[in-house]
Amino acid sequence: MKSLRIGLLGYGTVGQAFARLLEAQRPRLAAQGLQLAITAVGNRGIERKRTAVPLRGDVRFTDELESVVDDAAVDLVVELMGGLSPARELLLRAFDAGKSVVTANKLLLAQHGAELAARAREHGAALGIEASVAGGIPILRAVRESFAGDTITGVSGILNGTCNFILTDMESSGRSYEEVLAEAQQLGYAEADPRSDVDGEDAAYKLVLLARMAFGQEVGVPDVRREGITRLLPCDFVYAEMLSRTPRQLATARRLPSGRLELSVRTHLVSWTSMLAKVTGPFNAVRLTAESGGDFVFYGRGAGGDPTATAVLGDVVELARSGVRPGVPTFGRERLSACTPAGLEEIVSPYALRFMVRDRPGILAALSRCLADADINIDAVFQAPFADKEALPFVITLEPIAESQLQRALESMRALPFHKEPPLAFPMTS
Amino acid sequence: MKSLRIGLLGYGTVGQAFARLLEAQRPRLAAQGLQLAITAVGNRGIERKRTAVPLRGDVRFTDELESVVDDAAVDLVVELMGGLSPARELLLRAFDAGKSVVTANKLLLAQHGAELAARAREHGAALGIEASVAGGIPILRAVRESFAGDTITGVSGILNGTCNFILTDMESSGRSYEEVLAEAQQLGYAEADPRSDVDGEDAAYKLVLLARMAFGQEVGVPDVRREGITRLLPCDFVYAEMLSRTPRQLATARRLPSGRLELSVRTHLVSWTSMLAKVTGPFNAVRLTAESGGDFVFYGRGAGGDPTATAVLGDVVELARSGVRPGVPTFGRERLSACTPAGLEEIVSPYALRFMVRDRPGILAALSRCLADADINIDAVFQAPFADKEALPFVITLEPIAESQLQRALESMRALPFHKEPPLAFPMTS
Repeated sequence: MKSLRIGLLGYGTVGQAFARLLEAQRPRLAAQGLQLAITAVGNRGIERKRTAVPLRGDVRFTDELESVVDDAAVDLVVELMGGLSPARELLLRAFDAGKSVVTANKLLLAQHGAELAARAREHGAALGIEASVAGGIPILRAVRESFAGDTITGVSGILNGTCNFILTDMESSGRSYEEVLAEAQQLGYAEADPRSDVDGEDAAYKLVLLARMAFGQEVGVPDVRREGITRLLPCDFVYAEMLSRTPRQLATARRLPSGRLELSVRTHLVSWTSMLAKVTGPFNAVRLTAESGGDFVFYGRGAGGDPTATAVLGDVVELARSGVRPGVPTFGRERLSACTPAGLEEIVSPYALRFMVRDRPGILAALSRCLADADINIDAVFQAPFADKEALPFVITLEPIAESQLQRALESMRALPFHKEPPLAFPMTS
Repeated sequence: MKSLRIGLLGYGTVGQAFARLLEAQRPRLAAQGLQLAITAVGNRGIERKRTAVPLRGDVRFTDELESVVDDAAVDLVVELMGGLSPARELLLRAFDAGKSVVTANKLLLAQHGAELAARAREHGAALGIEASVAGGIPILRAVRESFAGDTITGVSGILNGTCNFILTDMESSGRSYEEVLAEAQQLGYAEADPRSDVDGEDAAYKLVLLARMAFGQEVGVPDVRREGITRLLPCDFVYAEMLSRTPRQLATARRLPSGRLELSVRTHLVSWTSMLAKVTGPFNAVRLTAESGGDFVFYGRGAGGDPTATAVLGDVVELARSGVRPGVPTFGRERLSACTPAGLEEIVSPYALRFMVRDRPGILAALSRCLADADINIDAVFQAPFADKEALPFVITLEPIAESQLQRALESMRALPFHKEPPLAFPMTS
């Protein structure tokens, strides 16, 4: 019988879901020879929460977070409190004491992952991070183990459930971003302050972790080019449908032929034939492309207490089985090389440009001139029957061009006087 | 630097794909501290094949398969020859010598998995089997590790690419089973003798392995109820569309409330809203349902040399990293309990029944009587405008009933005189 005593930091929704799952799974795991128990729980104002989940055995509840890490009756620290501080200090303290850590803290890992991994390595401790990306979807383990014998060339995912809920609701209802956001907030799918989700920040944290593991490079949040979903209009869904596509907010990391990485979070028009186009509501999915194995898609619930708890307990069980051996399921096993982000001139894609103009003669001529000046071929022009001459949307699709060309054209087009909204560019993805 | 010398049994399509992938990946793996090399290759008539893949280093090619297992310069045996014998004897011999094995041999594992796992355990060897189910899709690792902390309640998958190719081609082209099968054979998606694929045997082997790992029970091939795709007609796709569904050959294992397992391979009418309905062509996908984590779907290439090689090398790398520790990534880690298949009375589903009759008065009355006698409620009757009065198809949908009720009704209905084809029942699945 292998036994592992867990100190739990953070006893909110996710912490309680983890405690509930662990209690439910204890008999099954014991039958497999694993004795897992929570022996200490730390959270500010713990008194109000101590009866939230019925826990078996002796459990110490405390407001003193450091005391959980220091507890001689704690072998492994599970951090589900979130935020940068004091989580960072507590994790470093755990590693200094030779204790392994399992965490779902994407923000902390994206910002201080290298420091944490180095400290864990130094003390022979493990760092389990499966729950930090795409909730219950076991994508990091797949990258780390299942594709260890293949070269991953790209990962592209719907990593933010809030954005996907909003986009798929805008699509099915025809309503505006603002209306749908308000509904998502009521339903609990969007925060009162939704910026981190809708601006692509949350997805960027997860992409950073995924890209580090897939490509072995020290990717940072500033390496990720970001564009939110806040500028999408109902007409964008009409034009996407004309193109047999659907707007999806994708976090993408690709290794280009130069070896440099393209890293972005933005709205793509995804072909209906893609599995990613089928992902609706608050679900997540990740597409992984490997040289030999081809395309794979992993789909599931990307957030919420229960799926996150499943991923956390998966890491805990793996550590328990291995006897918390140093370096087993960890993020920090390998040293990463420096990240070399791709230049705009090597990022190539077909695009759809959406314009919203005050109708008048000569608009297409002026825009075509800007595109021609940037050496860009027009593929097609789409104009759906919208009636408002003061805010008329239309779309120009472009053959594959470099992002640098696109930016050049967008800059000169933005200077033209007839725009009601600045032009918006969507990569078209299969 | 950890080093591992590989003896490869079987040098056909998959064996060569593995050798090619390993050669391509050696520099990358060496940079991670893993020195992997193929030191012996065994295959009958090896002379014709020895130059098929340029291999670095000293490699011994031989017709003597046992000599590969016995070779003192072989630490790990990779078995990609397929079939029951001599693969079984060779693997047992490897375990007896304390050597670990990675195999993609679903037939052998489905038939003799328990014996092989026990022998591996006995000698402290590991048995890697990821490639045996769904090719490159890392579904077994997910079950074993990622969901180790959750209770899996069901797995349901498109595990046979041939069937899925045929069904999706029948759907898009409106052609008959026979025509589409002939095309699939030309394209290499179906064997000259397609029975193992189209009768559900191949999928049953994979389901057995998946169910053993998901439920810890000693599931055997005879426990799986099977129905092939050979009786499907173009009209079935017309009616499926009327029901907003699509026919998919699913291999399903579910733990019922009684704790017993429902195990089947058969054609379901899958709702368009399901991710499984989006899987077209020769691809595979597995849906996994976990108590806490919810529904997950894993999608990718389920067969072919390259995806299989990716899965095999993933297992090899995991073994190399762990120093071929006994019991690490293996199938044989846990002893399985006896399998208790579910009774027909506890397997409940809504169904669509398709009839093909010689039109005459009183048909619906006679069928309704049979259904009423089995205590079955009719949900709806569908009749598309087919003109042939001598072979008129129509569909009756049923509210959820037990499989035992269904079988009772089917038996009495089959005895009626107006059938052109025996009635066919499809579970309707979301």
